[in-house]
Amino acid sequence: MKPAALEPSDKALVPFVSVEHMMQLIHRIGVEEMMAGIALYIEQDFRRWELFDKTPRVASHSAEGVIELMPTSDGEVYGFKYVNGHPKNTSEGLQTVTAFGLLADVGTGYPVLLSEMTMLTALRTAATSAMVAKHLAPAGADTMAMIGNGAQSEFQSLAMKAICGIGNVRLYDTDAEATAKCAVNLAGHGLGVVTCSSPEDAIEGAQILTTCTADKQYATILTDNMVGSGVHINAIGGDCPGKTELAPGILRRSDIFVEYPPQTRIEGEIQQLDPDHEVTEFWQVLTGDAPGRTSDRQITLFDSVGFAIEDFSALRYVRDRLEDTGLYYALDLLADPDDPRDLFGMLMRAKP
Amino acid sequence: MKPAALEPSDKALVPFVSVEHMMQLIHRIGVEEMMAGIALYIEQDFRRWELFDKTPRVASHSAEGVIELMPTSDGEVYGFKYVNGHPKNTSEGLQTVTAFGLLADVGTGYPVLLSEMTMLTALRTAATSAMVAKHLAPAGADTMAMIGNGAQSEFQSLAMKAICGIGNVRLYDTDAEATAKCAVNLAGHGLGVVTCSSPEDAIEGAQILTTCTADKQYATILTDNMVGSGVHINAIGGDCPGKTELAPGILRRSDIFVEYPPQTRIEGEIQQLDPDHEVTEFWQVLTGDAPGRTSDRQITLFDSVGFAIEDFSALRYVRDRLEDTGLYYALDLLADPDDPRDLFGMLMRAKP
Repeated sequence: MKPAALEPSDKALVPFVSVEHMMQLIHRIGVEEMMAGIALYIEQDFRRWELFDKTPRVASHSAEGVIELMPTSDGEVYGFKYVNGHPKNTSEGLQTVTAFGLLADVGTGYPVLLSEMTMLTALRTAATSAMVAKHLAPAGADTMAMIGNGAQSEFQSLAMKAICGIGNVRLYDTDAEATAKCAVNLAGHGLGVVTCSSPEDAIEGAQILTTCTADKQYATILTDNMVGSGVHINAIGGDCPGKTELAPGILRRSDIFVEYPPQTRIEGEIQQLDPDHEVTEFWQVLTGDAPGRTSDRQITLFDSVGFAIEDFSALRYVRDRLEDTGLYYALDLLADPDDPRDLFGMLMRAKP
Repeated sequence: MKPAALEPSDKALVPFVSVEHMMQLIHRIGVEEMMAGIALYIEQDFRRWELFDKTPRVASHSAEGVIELMPTSDGEVYGFKYVNGHPKNTSEGLQTVTAFGLLADVGTGYPVLLSEMTMLTALRTAATSAMVAKHLAPAGADTMAMIGNGAQSEFQSLAMKAICGIGNVRLYDTDAEATAKCAVNLAGHGLGVVTCSSPEDAIEGAQILTTCTADKQYATILTDNMVGSGVHINAIGGDCPGKTELAPGILRRSDIFVEYPPQTRIEGEIQQLDPDHEVTEFWQVLTGDAPGRTSDRQITLFDSVGFAIEDFSALRYVRDRLEDTGLYYALDLLADPDDPRDLFGMLMRAKP
């Protein structure tokens, strides 16, 4: 990886975690252990929520999809994620969502980590869902309905097992092949897996209802009469303007928890409600500033859209686990002349 | 560079131009030729200014400096630059400014180029200055005063030679060592170089006055009585809130040209003026929608702060020149499972 002609100084090199390296890191740690570890980092960062620079994400919309930059900072470390969302990509054999991310030192502005985040985002999304469910789901929750069996479904299932202790998942997707794929992938991971032929069937006996579908449209994955009392709904798929999954009636019967209201009101399920509909910022449940679940009969709803701090936490986790693994390349990303004022001299000395 | 265990598909690989590769590309093309080429791309993109998505840059400020993301899109290609500005870095042997950038396909959201941009930004900044000076400087301008002889000074000098045809530069810096460094670096590049011991000396006989200093403070590099009529001022260093270089009196006697007014009013020299002080958007000079220089006696002032479209143009130029050079690495940045819904299966199959 290092150029042959000139060896850049250490300052100029940024550790880069490729997809292959990320997969090896996940296997070295264990996928469930890694999601549990990321969940702890996310919980730590949610507890110091007020300290973060919470810039809204910067979105560039087109007819085909969206490209977003999600920056944040805790005052010492700066992070951002690049992520796209292109629902039609699947039909062309491409990922709907791809991502990469970066951490930098606030004091110098120098990047300190560049990482793939397609894989890592799958882990952090599931870790966030399960960390929230650990605090909001009914006591003794043992069964999750997993509606939408795409790329996120196995991660959601295993994070709920590792972090909330569920023992069973009930799978449903409009595409039976997706359900079959998910069931095959989950075999041997210690979960009871039931494939279902309708959403009604899937939610039978489940205390946690996870919806994670990908169509960019107002959809109704769960109708009002399907959802009884005493459940926790983990709504992942309603995550951009015009894309929702739940009937408004469910939202009105639920106590709604969100990451960052200014973003969720635009992108989440609650875009269907009045802009002043009451919601709880989930970090306040962790700090004790707001109640979480207060009754067995209550419907709690985590209206998750994904927030920059979760990516920051996941990158922080990777950075802390990376040293001594060798699972990265040293990228010659930053020009670092001996004399900072002599960029031109550095260029001239590099003449072949 | 490619992982040993799994060969990612072509879709997952993103060309990465390292600092070393960028320097080799510059030498292969020639530094002056490359700045002239980038200037043409910038001019092309300025001519279609209205078509671009002009999101303001997203800044994260700290006591030590700023980290910024500068995104833009022409509807087909999306680009952004990460750039920091930390004036105190120099005293620690680090660059004040480092940068990298990315281009992506709007249709799929997939990145298509990742590149170092510390070196490339130096070229694009000088190319922008010279492209603007070509249109605004007095006819027959032959001599430039270069005030501030830091990392940008040689690039500015050679771009003005390549693009505007100047034959002489007069160098001044408060630090005589910086001036000596610049003079040594410019030797043999076909410019007459005079080192000066005061700014008054430097501007003697110059038709183009370039100011490019790095202190983050309101400074007065040029005072009002130093600047006579019939010159073009290329003000590079006034580029963030609280950082300016010119006496307000000069601004009031000048016709002021800017990149993007909402950004320049915050970051440029004109932060010293009323928010409604008249300025011309430079792209309108290129399209004929606004006059440029109209008299020999006029003072034209390009209040340059750097804009996302210039980075976009520079990245576009690099991308177009890169093929067949081999001057890039193929980065395994994007997870690309055979079945896009089967990210988990891809992960499991990568188990060592």
